[in-house]
Amino acid sequence: MSNACPLCKVDAVMTLWSDEQFRVIKVADPHLPGFVRLISQSHVAEISDLPAATQMQMFGLLVAIESAMRAMLTPDKINVASLGNQVPHLHWHIIPRWKDDVYFPDSIWSAPKRAADPSQATSAQGERQTQAEAFWNALPNICAAVR
Amino acid sequence: MSNACPLCKVDAVMTLWSDEQFRVIKVADPHLPGFVRLISQSHVAEISDLPAATQMQMFGLLVAIESAMRAMLTPDKINVASLGNQVPHLHWHIIPRWKDDVYFPDSIWSAPKRAADPSQATSAQGERQTQAEAFWNALPNICAAVR
Repeated sequence: MSNACPLCKVDAVMTLWSDEQFRVIKVADPHLPGFVRLISQSHVAEISDLPAATQMQMFGLLVAIESAMRAMLTPDKINVASLGNQVPHLHWHIIPRWKDDVYFPDSIWSAPKRAADPSQATSAQGERQTQAEAFWNALPNICAAVR
Repeated sequence: MSNACPLCKVDAVMTLWSDEQFRVIKVADPHLPGFVRLISQSHVAEISDLPAATQMQMFGLLVAIESAMRAMLTPDKINVASLGNQVPHLHWHIIPRWKDDVYFPDSIWSAPKRAADPSQATSAQGERQTQAEAFWNALPNICAAVR
């Protein structure tokens, strides 16, 4: 626990599921509906800072989230990344990607390639946004099932 | 196996270790000495395309490589990412990061933040380059030990 670390502060509004080791939050990025982060409850920087059993629990959650994301959002690709250069508290970005999203085929940390399609990316009525809400709503049961 | 996929072609010069499921290659990026990729031998796009047992073998390799990278290179951070937007064949970037590297604290897919430090980043005599060579040389035994 670090008082200076933003990821040690739990954002109850964005939290979809949590247990003693991990929590999953939704990321409200209008360009990437369904984006979530899987965050260690412990303030550690690297995967290998966790005990081996906890690492495997983390990877089980990661795969379960990826599988549900594929099934419910049918993105063109899924990006999974643990960077932590700016906030060195272990967390995974689990990101649905579409060929027409603003960054594709580059990373979401790259410069945008195109303007957003307002019918998909910014409208609360967009099909992807609707699917993202259903995916986020399903995640508590999906995460609980693998823990 | 896809004839059109560059990651289905094995680059023997860059390959440090391989078995039937995975291979590890070195990435010759002068800004990020020690960078490696862990690549699925199967032409699949997502983690969840692999059988569960193979996923866990992959994560075991990932953690072993991260641990050795920490021990041998002592980077400021390690970045781990499976993107595959440009080459949708499952592969992990395992990247040592330093606070003075050209991209830090942004991702390596972001625009550079600064010029390279020639004493570290581009000289074959740089301490990090020497450590990177030792790390790459150690990886065959490190990977074999967890398989």
